[in-house]
Amino acid sequence: MKEKKVEEEKSDVLRTNLRKIEKIKKLYESLREEMQKRWERDLPLEELLFDRWERAAKLGFGKGSSVYHSCYVYGDVKVGKNTWIGPFTVLDGTGGLKIGSYCSISAGVQIYTHDTVQWAITGGKAANSYAPVRIGDYCYLGPNVVVSKGVKIGARSIVGANSVVLSNVLPRSKLFGCPARPDSDNR
Amino acid sequence: MKEKKVEEEKSDVLRTNLRKIEKIKKLYESLREEMQKRWERDLPLEELLFDRWERAAKLGFGKGSSVYHSCYVYGDVKVGKNTWIGPFTVLDGTGGLKIGSYCSISAGVQIYTHDTVQWAITGGKAANSYAPVRIGDYCYLGPNVVVSKGVKIGARSIVGANSVVLSNVLPRSKLFGCPARPDSDNR
Amino acid sequence: MKEKKVEEEKSDVLRTNLRKIEKIKKLYESLREEMQKRWERDLPLEELLFDRWERAAKLGFGKGSSVYHSCYVYGDVKVGKNTWIGPFTVLDGTGGLKIGSYCSISAGVQIYTHDTVQWAITGGKAANSYAPVRIGDYCYLGPNVVVSKGVKIGARSIVGANSVVLSNVLPRSKLFGCPARPDSDNR
Repeated sequence: MKEKKVEEEKSDVLRTNLRKIEKIKKLYESLREEMQKRWERDLPLEELLFDRWERAAKLGFGKGSSVYHSCYVYGDVKVGKNTWIGPFTVLDGTGGLKIGSYCSISAGVQIYTHDTVQWAITGGKAANSYAPVRIGDYCYLGPNVVVSKGVKIGARSIVGANSVVLSNVLPRSKLFGCPARPDSDNR
Repeated sequence: MKEKKVEEEKSDVLRTNLRKIEKIKKLYESLREEMQKRWERDLPLEELLFDRWERAAKLGFGKGSSVYHSCYVYGDVKVGKNTWIGPFTVLDGTGGLKIGSYCSISAGVQIYTHDTVQWAITGGKAANSYAPVRIGDYCYLGPNVVVSKGVKIGARSIVGANSVVLSNVLPRSKLFGCPARPDSDNR
Repeated sequence: MKEKKVEEEKSDVLRTNLRKIEKIKKLYESLREEMQKRWERDLPLEELLFDRWERAAKLGFGKGSSVYHSCYVYGDVKVGKNTWIGPFTVLDGTGGLKIGSYCSISAGVQIYTHDTVQWAITGGKAANSYAPVRIGDYCYLGPNVVVSKGVKIGARSIVGANSVVLSNVLPRSKLFGCPARPDSDNR
């Protein structure tokens, strides 16, 4: 008798969840359809629910800047005007990060102002180390670019996809590779 | 008196949210347990709620194709049959993107048919530029591969992890690196 | 008459959704504000709702380990103590994956114990192939590192950002690049 009751309770939990899931699915479908009609795009739920310009404004980023909702923002991050920050990005401002105006921070870009190398290899004994990063105005960071702590990237620089920037970059540079080096062929 | 009321209202908001969060957590746990039992995997909430074959079907992709819910799909994207599109991907069809059948589009792959390089370095004056991309049948694009606008990748090609494809690729090619070059050692 | 009713029903659906979305937005805002106050970070909704130490514990990972909620975990994954697993990661244990203690598995890392290369180029005829991976204690895997099936990485190794590890790595190695090679300059 008791066992049967437990079984019934279980299926109640399941039934409630199924109803809830159906409701969430309907909401998702209606949001997708609207986005598809208006902007011809199909995005993760979070991007359909929320507004990426609002997120940027709440973070104090400059007018016209936007940041996708799959971006992880840590610590003190300052961003200028009209900068586009894509999905799957990490903006680590724990050591102080400043990004200029009219930058294109492509999907998958990760910018760090700390690292955990010493933390890992000492088994947690060494502390993290920190250094600020500064990205100038009018910069293009391609998809999956990683910028290490302490780096300054001068204005109007272009960093190619999947590059790793380990040292300072002069203004109007064009870089590519791991580690990123001047891309002389394309200058 | 008035202040006390405000305080009470605040805590009501908090209490309601905590109850809501508890409900969402229970839903999440029940979905995780089911996925773990059935498929031995532990995935982000969105993948537990929705079906990636349904998403592909709604986008008009071919029979048997699937696309994870963390994928961002823009513009005109056509995909053949039985193609697998992983998490953290970007399919940009704003300049026209066609992907064949039986392709493996690994996690983190980003395929572009436009870029914002000139937009950034001119401070928003230059327009974006567009060019179509075509991925043939039976291709393997490894994790985090980036494909630039205008590129054609021939059928049965293999592109290694973290590579960047900047120019056309003949059928049955095997490429690796930034930029991706023929991987002669492994041919 | 009938048409008018359909119209009214439609707008009811829309109105209900808008109310629902407003509720979700309020919940999101309250969670963001709390996270910002406590930890000075602004994260995707899923990270605000759930706890990454709880997730690690449910997966049987060692004490003090954590795994972000945007991580995809497949199959048999064993993780030691105090290991940090970042966002946008893939832990594929379908061929058996063991990660040690005090590892730093950075954002975007993908570790594989199978691949679908043959599956793709044979049009689904060839089966996937599997091989186990073992990451020793005190290892640092940088952002977007990809580890291929069958690889052993010895303890206290450092793998630089955007590297691809295709073969075994001795303990205390320092590697970088695609494919990852010893980084002799920095030793």
